[in-house]
Amino acid sequence: MRHDGRMADMIRPVTIETDYLIHPEGSVLITVGNTKVICTASIEERVPHFLRNSGKGWITAEYSMLPRATGQRTQREASKGKVSGRTMEIQRLIGRALRAVIDLETLGERTIWVDCDVIQADGGTRTASITGAFVATAMAISKLHIEKGLAKFPITDFLAATSVGKTVEGELILDLDYIEDSSAAVDMNVVMTGAGAFVELQGTGEESTFTRVEMNGLVELAEVGINQLVEVQKEALGLVAQLIKPKEQGES
Amino acid sequence: MRHDGRMADMIRPVTIETDYLIHPEGSVLITVGNTKVICTASIEERVPHFLRNSGKGWITAEYSMLPRATGQRTQREASKGKVSGRTMEIQRLIGRALRAVIDLETLGERTIWVDCDVIQADGGTRTASITGAFVATAMAISKLHIEKGLAKFPITDFLAATSVGKTVEGELILDLDYIEDSSAAVDMNVVMTGAGAFVELQGTGEESTFTRVEMNGLVELAEVGINQLVEVQKEALGLVAQLIKPKEQGES
Amino acid sequence: MRHDGRMADMIRPVTIETDYLIHPEGSVLITVGNTKVICTASIEERVPHFLRNSGKGWITAEYSMLPRATGQRTQREASKGKVSGRTMEIQRLIGRALRAVIDLETLGERTIWVDCDVIQADGGTRTASITGAFVATAMAISKLHIEKGLAKFPITDFLAATSVGKTVEGELILDLDYIEDSSAAVDMNVVMTGAGAFVELQGTGEESTFTRVEMNGLVELAEVGINQLVEVQKEALGLVAQLIKPKEQGES
Amino acid sequence: MRHDGRMADMIRPVTIETDYLIHPEGSVLITVGNTKVICTASIEERVPHFLRNSGKGWITAEYSMLPRATGQRTQREASKGKVSGRTMEIQRLIGRALRAVIDLETLGERTIWVDCDVIQADGGTRTASITGAFVATAMAISKLHIEKGLAKFPITDFLAATSVGKTVEGELILDLDYIEDSSAAVDMNVVMTGAGAFVELQGTGEESTFTRVEMNGLVELAEVGINQLVEVQKEALGLVAQLIKPKEQGES
Amino acid sequence: MRHDGRMADMIRPVTIETDYLIHPEGSVLITVGNTKVICTASIEERVPHFLRNSGKGWITAEYSMLPRATGQRTQREASKGKVSGRTMEIQRLIGRALRAVIDLETLGERTIWVDCDVIQADGGTRTASITGAFVATAMAISKLHIEKGLAKFPITDFLAATSVGKTVEGELILDLDYIEDSSAAVDMNVVMTGAGAFVELQGTGEESTFTRVEMNGLVELAEVGINQLVEVQKEALGLVAQLIKPKEQGES
Amino acid sequence: MRHDGRMADMIRPVTIETDYLIHPEGSVLITVGNTKVICTASIEERVPHFLRNSGKGWITAEYSMLPRATGQRTQREASKGKVSGRTMEIQRLIGRALRAVIDLETLGERTIWVDCDVIQADGGTRTASITGAFVATAMAISKLHIEKGLAKFPITDFLAATSVGKTVEGELILDLDYIEDSSAAVDMNVVMTGAGAFVELQGTGEESTFTRVEMNGLVELAEVGINQLVEVQKEALGLVAQLIKPKEQGES
Repeated sequence: MRHDGRMADMIRPVTIETDYLIHPEGSVLITVGNTKVICTASIEERVPHFLRNSGKGWITAEYSMLPRATGQRTQREASKGKVSGRTMEIQRLIGRALRAVIDLETLGERTIWVDCDVIQADGGTRTASITGAFVATAMAISKLHIEKGLAKFPITDFLAATSVGKTVEGELILDLDYIEDSSAAVDMNVVMTGAGAFVELQGTGEESTFTRVEMNGLVELAEVGINQLVEVQKEALGLVAQLIKPKEQGES
Repeated sequence: MRHDGRMADMIRPVTIETDYLIHPEGSVLITVGNTKVICTASIEERVPHFLRNSGKGWITAEYSMLPRATGQRTQREASKGKVSGRTMEIQRLIGRALRAVIDLETLGERTIWVDCDVIQADGGTRTASITGAFVATAMAISKLHIEKGLAKFPITDFLAATSVGKTVEGELILDLDYIEDSSAAVDMNVVMTGAGAFVELQGTGEESTFTRVEMNGLVELAEVGINQLVEVQKEALGLVAQLIKPKEQGES
Repeated sequence: MRHDGRMADMIRPVTIETDYLIHPEGSVLITVGNTKVICTASIEERVPHFLRNSGKGWITAEYSMLPRATGQRTQREASKGKVSGRTMEIQRLIGRALRAVIDLETLGERTIWVDCDVIQADGGTRTASITGAFVATAMAISKLHIEKGLAKFPITDFLAATSVGKTVEGELILDLDYIEDSSAAVDMNVVMTGAGAFVELQGTGEESTFTRVEMNGLVELAEVGINQLVEVQKEALGLVAQLIKPKEQGES
Repeated sequence: MRHDGRMADMIRPVTIETDYLIHPEGSVLITVGNTKVICTASIEERVPHFLRNSGKGWITAEYSMLPRATGQRTQREASKGKVSGRTMEIQRLIGRALRAVIDLETLGERTIWVDCDVIQADGGTRTASITGAFVATAMAISKLHIEKGLAKFPITDFLAATSVGKTVEGELILDLDYIEDSSAAVDMNVVMTGAGAFVELQGTGEESTFTRVEMNGLVELAEVGINQLVEVQKEALGLVAQLIKPKEQGES
Repeated sequence: MRHDGRMADMIRPVTIETDYLIHPEGSVLITVGNTKVICTASIEERVPHFLRNSGKGWITAEYSMLPRATGQRTQREASKGKVSGRTMEIQRLIGRALRAVIDLETLGERTIWVDCDVIQADGGTRTASITGAFVATAMAISKLHIEKGLAKFPITDFLAATSVGKTVEGELILDLDYIEDSSAAVDMNVVMTGAGAFVELQGTGEESTFTRVEMNGLVELAEVGINQLVEVQKEALGLVAQLIKPKEQGES
Repeated sequence: MRHDGRMADMIRPVTIETDYLIHPEGSVLITVGNTKVICTASIEERVPHFLRNSGKGWITAEYSMLPRATGQRTQREASKGKVSGRTMEIQRLIGRALRAVIDLETLGERTIWVDCDVIQADGGTRTASITGAFVATAMAISKLHIEKGLAKFPITDFLAATSVGKTVEGELILDLDYIEDSSAAVDMNVVMTGAGAFVELQGTGEESTFTRVEMNGLVELAEVGINQLVEVQKEALGLVAQLIKPKEQGES
């Protein structure tokens, strides 16, 4: 039994509140246990320089934490005048993950700016950001689809993420909170589609290692969690969820 | 009658939700109409260099807006690598205002970091930040007072802020929202104590001017609004409000 | 009696030397007591991006102090790699103040760059900058008017600034020098037109407050000082002063 | 058959030249096909702030490419004034990987600075950097061990890295060069110990995904390559290789 | 005859006004033709980190131009957020030059900060800065000598600088103004002591070259100018000049 | 006799390996004793803004050192976020020197980017960079000449550089290594053409001076060294060397 009473293969309670803010095209507040992230999706009718006249769109993400999202106040990156390596890694990960399930040609020459702002942190902020950002993006694209009449709905599948890990005692656990994460021997973030394909797999032993058997155990736990997250996404999206029609597995 | 149905001397609906986040010593979500700001107060047991061994404490503030707090997405200051002049002005204003009602010697050699993060913007974000930050700071100091047993409660009076303005038609109005603010001829931010003394008065005519009579009219409107804001603060603070015992006017 | 022998309502000796430098379109050396500022106005035949094809011009200001303008050497902002919050506030104030008395449509699509460089500081550098910058700008615009034949002279009124304050003993005084400024309970900067309208009013109690009666007393003192400053400006401008024909009060 | 004639499970020719530079405590030139990286290890007799008086050492890495390491000249990060997200990700990866096989307590309170400078790039620069950096670090630590007489040799196992990928045709291949990497559907970087345990696994589908079967196929290919890289490391290290005595698998 | 009527071997009119500002320990306004520079010397009672506990002092210089010192307004380096290569070169040159004639051990563990701010530029700003900075520094050190009673006067000789150049017609000229400088084939800055020794010699052909004979001709012209500059320095320094007793040539 | 056995007028062993890297248009590894620099020349088919539509080309240089090129690790400028004054001085020197022997009009509207990266430093890195950069640039331009058929070969003469110095004992020496350089009383860098004309002469006494006689002695030593360096360049360039046909001396 874990410190908060969960079994090894249980995720924390998850809620996704859509249309959380009035200005953005898509916005959600996602809560995963005590982790809370505001995710917004903004549509801009132009693309970065390297895509001009390509007919293709782009999705890019930014991530930040409020200074007191954490137990100790962290200095603002704006005050420091630069973005940390950790933030850059997470921003790149979120953008890359979303691009895997969005058909950029159908989207057309526009950019979706995804912003994930962590209001409260208790482990798993990057995976909660991806899970929430997917819903905000789907909301924004559905509005775009209605207004502009795209050739088809450009989202090709659901997308969610969770973390799994190995404790120093060797136990494999799902959806680590901050206490578990800071003492884990191995930490793995997994991003998967609704159809069960991997988009991103990042397993890391900080001063530790893991075996092939453990890798497969971790990945199986992640699948358990992601299936549940996709169900919460579907509920939050309501009718919009029906626009997302994944290709049969194997096609990708 | 104003575009949202208010009379000239009416403020928007205001709520202050305390203990909004689990980590900070003090935190609120303040909403003023559609403007929403998360204000937190963090206590650090040391002071900036210029106050070491002075026996005095310090209060400093930082302010930021989520990129989609606004109708158009604004670029993150962390991405730009520098804080704008507007942000610096607001940060300095918030810190200066709070220092006027907090006895830094009673506080002792510690720093209160105030963070105001605008989640949603519809005019008056700096004055909402001050009004909310006061409550978050009072909550944090009350916890400190209980834990450390300060000589007395170091907050000497309530503190709230609002904006007033002159429309291009010459009408004086209270608590401008974004539509009103962006077309106003004169804009004035007023910070006052519960006892009715001015802490800060910033009246600005952008490509316009104002007379002495108008100045007095604006200041009177601000008093009306600030009295109501202080009532909301008292309710939000509950028992903590009773620890704040302003000196008789004239003493300061 | 004040430490330098002045009465409460006296300003320091003021001189404005025009055509101080050979290169700029307009330039002055203004001295207010021991405070000395070089103000220049440069005309650029284009406007910032947000005004392209608007038919309107722009005025922007930059402010700096030589490292040894002050008693202690201050580090250069160029060496620190960023401009301080104080500098940004002052720059924004100078630009905003000048824009209040210049008809940007008559100016046409050009930018006036105002530079205020403090050579020697003894309190009141921002208000001396505004008072001097107005003269430098008027000189530059008069040359422009002669060369290009504008529809009319685009300066609609004189503009000057001074500071007033409340001492810790509660006395209200005009035109504070550094010694007075650093110990004042309340500090107020006032920018007014020649016709006596307010352009900017910034009253601040650093760890102190002020009443409505004090506010009115401070503002009256400021009027006394600004009237004298405008006379010095008129003398410095000579014939150019006659081109400035304020609208009747109440029109603005 | 691949474009350069290799089979799917073949790595490119690898050489590691030790003592490549005269100044650093450890230095190598590693070549993997046309990819060439200078890796150095420098020992500093102090640790970062967060480890002072902990008795533990630290290993940190920096990574850079010469502007013309690539086909098109890339702008220097020093000229841009900031390090890119890609560089930060790689730097963090190299440092984290090395820390997994070095006993920081035996190392004692000193920092090993690893520098990887890519002289010529043809795909796989981050994995070549890890493989080369391990050898440079082992050389530096062996000198330290001789000079200072550490309690034991603090390197607990060999460490090497390679990339594997899935082509758009679905084939799994080992050690991708630039041409293969830029067209791959899935790219995975794998860092393993000499004993065959995973230290880091980063699989990414850029606008694509992969299945569990493919994940296992990729990991198996990586093992093939890493075993060969460890052999080249052993040869380069000569007698120093004998100081590295991995724990039995399962112990970690 | 040159465009301003000077012969090839004539310098422009030079004046040095001492005690130009009230705050710095030493300050001058130097004018060389239309070039005007404010030079100040500030004494700080500590040294940079690399000289702590060495018993030696330090001299460092900073250089800047007002935006409208030049015909076209130049952007402030503080606004750009970085100091240009040209500025850095000049700053390093001024500091290095002064250190050649100041005995840093006699100075003791203190730093002299030299600031050269160009108010008006017409060629030769770096050499005017050196010539003026020498006088400001001598003034500051003389005050220090009186207050602290140094073992001896630490300035070992006079120091002045000028520029020489070769026109595109091949003529060698002394003390180039802006018009001459911008069209010169070869530009050489020469810093010499009062005793006639070289401290710095920087000859540059921008898209051009020069012979040994020309080099000697340029250097001879420079000597002519520097002798006259040292006379102006002596007059400006008055009694302080008598404290400077150069060693016999050959001793250095 | 010098510490490494050389006579005062001897340079260190020099080699220049051309086509050192596969990607750049021109590249060399130059070694001067223990100093090793990779120099590359890249051709870009456009010019900086100030040369658009001028018909002229441009040459610009960047310089960097690997962190462990030196005995003590030096921090990366990319990590510090800015380029040092020393680096800027050297970059500007390299670019200026090359421009003296390249006919920018014949080159046409294209930019040559020269990159000098010091792999190992033992004194004289800036002069080795110039000597190597000349060869890399000649290689790149010869390829350009073949591909594009320029009107003539735009390099007008050979160009090489060396350092000379005066020891504290007063001896004049050629091609200083790090030990000699760090203790020298006077340091002079000389850039000359194959025809023996000066392009750049930078003599500096750090806390010391030099006489006219010493200046001439230093310059003569430099000529000896540069003649030998040009011979090495000719050999390295092979047939390309024959395309370089200097004008008769006196023409320039």
